[in-house]
Amino acid sequence: MSYKTQMQAAKNGVITEQLKIVAYKEGISEESLRARVAAGAVAIPANINHKSLSPEGVGEGLRTKINVNLGVSGDCADYSKEFDKVKLSIELKAEAIMDLSNYGKTFEFRKQLIEHSPAMLGTVPIYDAIGYLEKELVNISAQDFLDVVELHARQGVDFMTIHAGINRKTISVFKESGRLMNIVSRGGSLLFAWMELTGRENPFYEYYDAVMDIFRKYDVTISLGDAMRPGAIADSTDSSQITELIELGLLTKRAWARDVQVMVEGPGHMAINEIKANMVLQKRLCHNAPFYILGPLVTDIAPGYDHITSAIGGAIAAAAGADFLCYVTPAEHLRLPDLQDVKEGIIAAKIAAHAADIAKGIPSARVIDNKMSKARREIDWEEMYKHSIDPEKARRYRESVPVENERSCSMCGKMCAVRTTNAILEGKELDL
Amino acid sequence: MSYKTQMQAAKNGVITEQLKIVAYKEGISEESLRARVAAGAVAIPANINHKSLSPEGVGEGLRTKINVNLGVSGDCADYSKEFDKVKLSIELKAEAIMDLSNYGKTFEFRKQLIEHSPAMLGTVPIYDAIGYLEKELVNISAQDFLDVVELHARQGVDFMTIHAGINRKTISVFKESGRLMNIVSRGGSLLFAWMELTGRENPFYEYYDAVMDIFRKYDVTISLGDAMRPGAIADSTDSSQITELIELGLLTKRAWARDVQVMVEGPGHMAINEIKANMVLQKRLCHNAPFYILGPLVTDIAPGYDHITSAIGGAIAAAAGADFLCYVTPAEHLRLPDLQDVKEGIIAAKIAAHAADIAKGIPSARVIDNKMSKARREIDWEEMYKHSIDPEKARRYRESVPVENERSCSMCGKMCAVRTTNAILEGKELDL
Repeated sequence: MSYKTQMQAAKNGVITEQLKIVAYKEGISEESLRARVAAGAVAIPANINHKSLSPEGVGEGLRTKINVNLGVSGDCADYSKEFDKVKLSIELKAEAIMDLSNYGKTFEFRKQLIEHSPAMLGTVPIYDAIGYLEKELVNISAQDFLDVVELHARQGVDFMTIHAGINRKTISVFKESGRLMNIVSRGGSLLFAWMELTGRENPFYEYYDAVMDIFRKYDVTISLGDAMRPGAIADSTDSSQITELIELGLLTKRAWARDVQVMVEGPGHMAINEIKANMVLQKRLCHNAPFYILGPLVTDIAPGYDHITSAIGGAIAAAAGADFLCYVTPAEHLRLPDLQDVKEGIIAAKIAAHAADIAKGIPSARVIDNKMSKARREIDWEEMYKHSIDPEKARRYRESVPVENERSCSMCGKMCAVRTTNAILEGKELDL
Repeated sequence: MSYKTQMQAAKNGVITEQLKIVAYKEGISEESLRARVAAGAVAIPANINHKSLSPEGVGEGLRTKINVNLGVSGDCADYSKEFDKVKLSIELKAEAIMDLSNYGKTFEFRKQLIEHSPAMLGTVPIYDAIGYLEKELVNISAQDFLDVVELHARQGVDFMTIHAGINRKTISVFKESGRLMNIVSRGGSLLFAWMELTGRENPFYEYYDAVMDIFRKYDVTISLGDAMRPGAIADSTDSSQITELIELGLLTKRAWARDVQVMVEGPGHMAINEIKANMVLQKRLCHNAPFYILGPLVTDIAPGYDHITSAIGGAIAAAAGADFLCYVTPAEHLRLPDLQDVKEGIIAAKIAAHAADIAKGIPSARVIDNKMSKARREIDWEEMYKHSIDPEKARRYRESVPVENERSCSMCGKMCAVRTTNAILEGKELDL
């Protein structure tokens, strides 16, 4: 191969197999996609060792993608349950899965995942470092962290969250300005603790170039983590968040200089009126790198329903430029999600992504909506189920209540507006 | 009493009991509220015969309100089930209930509702006309329609949906321009059928002044129905919808001239990128009258999840100026909602309304979010449940999985970011 990474290939004018597939899936020309990958506006996370991958592009002008979080942990070490979530994610066509395992046989779990998942795979190596190394946090060395990164890269992980932006500068601003919820990023809090306890610089920042060497070798995409993600609407768009974002923009350029693909991670909890400004800010400060967001959750008060608070924020954000949505389940803030939570989280994220794709004018996004509406006008239930985001639920709901007339539902019965209007427009008898 | 309606009182500088209560609930001055009611920017739907009412204001600068639809019908004539929905709506603090009964003992059901509901009550008289009069649609006279309106008004209904904007002009544009989903408003389709079959003008348009006389007598607020509400994202903001909206703006002025309070109803299905423009258009064409919206549903393809598509659209719309959200349940497009559907619909609508109130800067909207986030930082679960939109679900979720440590949840366990950050900031030992 004449190139190390998708970005290097694109810069050199090479159309890779992965790029061809992505261009086909998106219905755009290979050349326009290549230009976007070369400029960093699109990432195609595709580790050279992830052989089962069906590649996807993330970024400018492409469909909004969604990610599912799962993994084994101390409180939930049931491997088969986690694999049921993997199967469901693939069935429901999530484009990415992040394995957040932090306890037990994480190596083996990851291996299985990489062997079987057509979805792109992400990890947060620092979680695994804590569980895998079996050392006290303070005794983990910078080299230990790099070793875990290398291990994940070699195994075939497509993208990794690296919290390199929470450096001494960011922490200094955080301590000076204060916050209601402080740090709510798990990886960020661990690095903050490590830095405070050891007195050293963030190892992922200090040895960023070494991390980039590993990523370049396996074509891992860096997902620049937002340790200062606001965990309350009171903290959003504050000096801590934006200071870190500026660092992420600087780190983006350093990655690109080594042909490493980049995504930047974003908020968090955030009031609706701030979302659009945050999208503009990220695109500007991070030089149009793809934006991967968790939420934003548009209110803090809805535990049990954060798939909804997140769907609201995610749809607005993606319509305004975010490229990639991390799902949030109803279990957020409360417990590890079970299979039903995962399903609800995926569907909510897919709704947000699709609604945003319509809004931002992604070609052909409206085609399925128009098919659905045509089926509705014709009161053709089988056709409606076919175009539903969850055909099983749609069918189950309608069929749970007996109806007088096949061409209506129990909601309006004979007074169905569609039926009435059709009868008049077609000159048929009205049966009210 | 020196006035007939809240609007007349406000115009005359009279501070009514109802206005006092609303000003207190909203935390604003009586004088500023009076000015808004006088100008029509706020409506306080309060029928003089609804004695159990705890009045609410709808409109400019006030909290976004939500409405719950229910009622007895041919396919679901179980009165006690519908009353369970009423109880739940009141428990969950929905500000309005629309009784859409169209079959059976609608008079008695409405009577019970008016006697017991502190929430404001709305109806769509034309639904009841079909069921109550037991006549063929074509045989219902204009006077029959007015008689049903008078009956509802006398009983104590606070606001009524009247589809007066689907007149000959609107139908002419509709027929010329065409649509994917035609007419999806139930009341609108019945009037369309009546007009096509009888060859006459819309009776609510032709006898609008007579309707206003009834409304003035009992202080019923007119909710100008949008018969041309788009039922597909392909139909939104089209000539049919906007032609009707122009008519609704003209009818708004005619109502105000008789001191009748007005709300204007809006879409519907609508892509995210069109929502803000629609809010601007309604406020301009309808002279700043309160906007009462159903949805907007931001995609057509999610039957079973339209509480989510609607929460996305409703939050965006309310943040951009809509004042009143009609709930949408997961059963929308599929069946009559059961009690669980009603609950999910109410919670989703409340989330949308609250998130919008934060965004539009309603005073004190953020207070509860800040309390929740403080409780989160302190990992105080009882306090978190207290500020949750659904305390029972939050508790049930967290307590469904055993956790090692009382001060965490199964999601992150010992790796809880809040716990880690607190330990470092407070100089306590880290227990990872």
